[in-house]
Amino acid sequence: MSVTAPAGFEAAGVAAGLKTTGKPDLALVVNRGPLQHAAAVFTSNRAKANPILWSQQAIADGTASAVVLNSGGANCFTGAQGFQTTHATAEAAAGALQVSAGDVLVCSTGLIGDQLDRAKVLAGVEAAVAALTADGGDDAARAIMTTDTVPKTTVVSRDGWSIGGMAKGAGMLAPGVATMLVVITTDAALEPPALDAALRSATRVTFDRLDSDGCMSTNDQVTLLASGASGITPDPAEFAAALTEACADLARQLQHDAEGAAHDIAIRVVGAVTEDEAVEVARSVARNNLFKTAVFGNDPNWGRVLAAIGTTSAEFDPYAVDVSMNGVRVCSAGGPDRPRTEVDLTPRAVDVLIDLHAGGATATVLTNDLTHDYVHENSAYSS
Amino acid sequence: MSVTAPAGFEAAGVAAGLKTTGKPDLALVVNRGPLQHAAAVFTSNRAKANPILWSQQAIADGTASAVVLNSGGANCFTGAQGFQTTHATAEAAAGALQVSAGDVLVCSTGLIGDQLDRAKVLAGVEAAVAALTADGGDDAARAIMTTDTVPKTTVVSRDGWSIGGMAKGAGMLAPGVATMLVVITTDAALEPPALDAALRSATRVTFDRLDSDGCMSTNDQVTLLASGASGITPDPAEFAAALTEACADLARQLQHDAEGAAHDIAIRVVGAVTEDEAVEVARSVARNNLFKTAVFGNDPNWGRVLAAIGTTSAEFDPYAVDVSMNGVRVCSAGGPDRPRTEVDLTPRAVDVLIDLHAGGATATVLTNDLTHDYVHENSAYSS
Repeated sequence: MSVTAPAGFEAAGVAAGLKTTGKPDLALVVNRGPLQHAAAVFTSNRAKANPILWSQQAIADGTASAVVLNSGGANCFTGAQGFQTTHATAEAAAGALQVSAGDVLVCSTGLIGDQLDRAKVLAGVEAAVAALTADGGDDAARAIMTTDTVPKTTVVSRDGWSIGGMAKGAGMLAPGVATMLVVITTDAALEPPALDAALRSATRVTFDRLDSDGCMSTNDQVTLLASGASGITPDPAEFAAALTEACADLARQLQHDAEGAAHDIAIRVVGAVTEDEAVEVARSVARNNLFKTAVFGNDPNWGRVLAAIGTTSAEFDPYAVDVSMNGVRVCSAGGPDRPRTEVDLTPRAVDVLIDLHAGGATATVLTNDLTHDYVHENSAYSS
Repeated sequence: MSVTAPAGFEAAGVAAGLKTTGKPDLALVVNRGPLQHAAAVFTSNRAKANPILWSQQAIADGTASAVVLNSGGANCFTGAQGFQTTHATAEAAAGALQVSAGDVLVCSTGLIGDQLDRAKVLAGVEAAVAALTADGGDDAARAIMTTDTVPKTTVVSRDGWSIGGMAKGAGMLAPGVATMLVVITTDAALEPPALDAALRSATRVTFDRLDSDGCMSTNDQVTLLASGASGITPDPAEFAAALTEACADLARQLQHDAEGAAHDIAIRVVGAVTEDEAVEVARSVARNNLFKTAVFGNDPNWGRVLAAIGTTSAEFDPYAVDVSMNGVRVCSAGGPDRPRTEVDLTPRAVDVLIDLHAGGATATVLTNDLTHDYVHENSAYSS
């Protein structure tokens, strides 16, 4: 059910002809209220796509009635013409839905640097409005796919209210502050500041700690829409926990479908002085191509882990560090421990545990291995 | 002739049995004087191998008589036993050469986390001392190869004096402050502070701007030995220029032989506010896997260039940037310019020119593409 699981939402996914394959490429999510409260986080990349520039303005007042999302083109680095396409998209949706254009967010994903076909987008918006239904969440989730092989959706239900979500993202997957294209809906009744706080706390420990290929997108956006249709205002902590659960579920789905990946790797750092340093250490491993290729080759090459973390400024003694892989401690106090041959890296899930022995903070970063299929997918055609 | 081109040096390369292939794996370079002046720069990785820890102490007084280098093992994260192996190596060479152990530098390269076979190393040192000749430079250059497919050597001749050099390095090739294993010799007569200044200025604009795969080694060391055998003390600026020429030549050879590479990419940034910012911008592109796979696929995907530089903190407006690839300006003022189809990326050499239009500083970073062969070489076996 995706984004239409909570009460008060309709959605649709249609083929607007932006993808040369003819597959669905335009999604619409509409909040029928009674509340139109919203929050969003955006890519921290300074090179921001036109839909990001638009949506940042549109969300400033904490309200949004609808989100239009297209695959088949990022509308990034397309100049004034590209911005006007985004603006016209919001106007078209607003006209058909009889809301203000300033309450319509726009998200785009696809190749950077090509103009979107404006006429196709506008016709697609019209078709999507006509196709809106209260169970259109799955159609919408399919329409935002690019190199994704499966749609990503989630539903978290609580007593009388719920959260639904959809996500796309398979490459250029290293969010900073914000993330890939995600729309999350809830029928809980919450004010915009509460939504914003919950969204930031949830993304900080979920999407922000997914680093598949170290490449930050220009188009990342996570939008949270609240209809209030349940009539229930949950405790903020309870809502934040449910939202974090939904985001973590979507993040794991994104990791599992990452371009060309053969392993889903969780890099857990413990014994750090601060949580930020734990993230820095984990991320240095997640972005190390030699470590990532070793995991692809089922090689528990812990030396590459230590070489990677040695490039960070986190506080620890490299010669006090322990490293375990899939439960086998192959390195203790910066020296060899159990034989590498005891480690089985053939399962898709790989757990790397790094104990810095420097403090009490911890963090986990999710990443993938670097494979022939990743190279193929990202060299054989433009994306 | 490599390191034995300048007068006053002898070298050898022997098979000590550290490599399972039986190929040469231990090199020795000896400075016969009359001067034994030296300088060295080391990896800035905090995870430093035992030979780095030893050599940093040995070079502190600005003098060195010899360098022992082994392939077949990095002697990194091998604890006290590993350090004692390095120490014993220096002692063995010192005894045979009748010099102080504190004047023998040691370099190692190979797999991290495995103990070197000390008996084989010490027997190798003995054999290398016995094999020393005034034309042993090429043997030494071959004995330090790991995944290198060709030895890397250089000779720069000036009026009455010269510089010779050898280098190894094909993976984990992203030096920070220092670099891979390099030994450079000269028969110019220079004091240690002059050598140190020249070496730092040369490496800063050569090895430090080679970033093949973003992975910094634990064992990088560039050593400069001066025999004074020419009796000539060149002008410092002239010496620094010649040394930079030698280092740049070796850096290009390292780039050209990088593991699995199909393209040698020069990323030139112009119009930056400072040289450091130009390097930061160029390096962000050099480390972007999506850009590197695109080049492998002969795809002039300038959107990935702009997405990469948008992650930096350098001062520029993303919507004022021009990007040219192999002479074709595909992006101007942050928007599409010439069609991508005009760009020919089939030659091995790829030139990416990024004009930030923000200032007058410039820098070039050398890198490689990300290929199936890179994934294969770094996943199929431990290195």
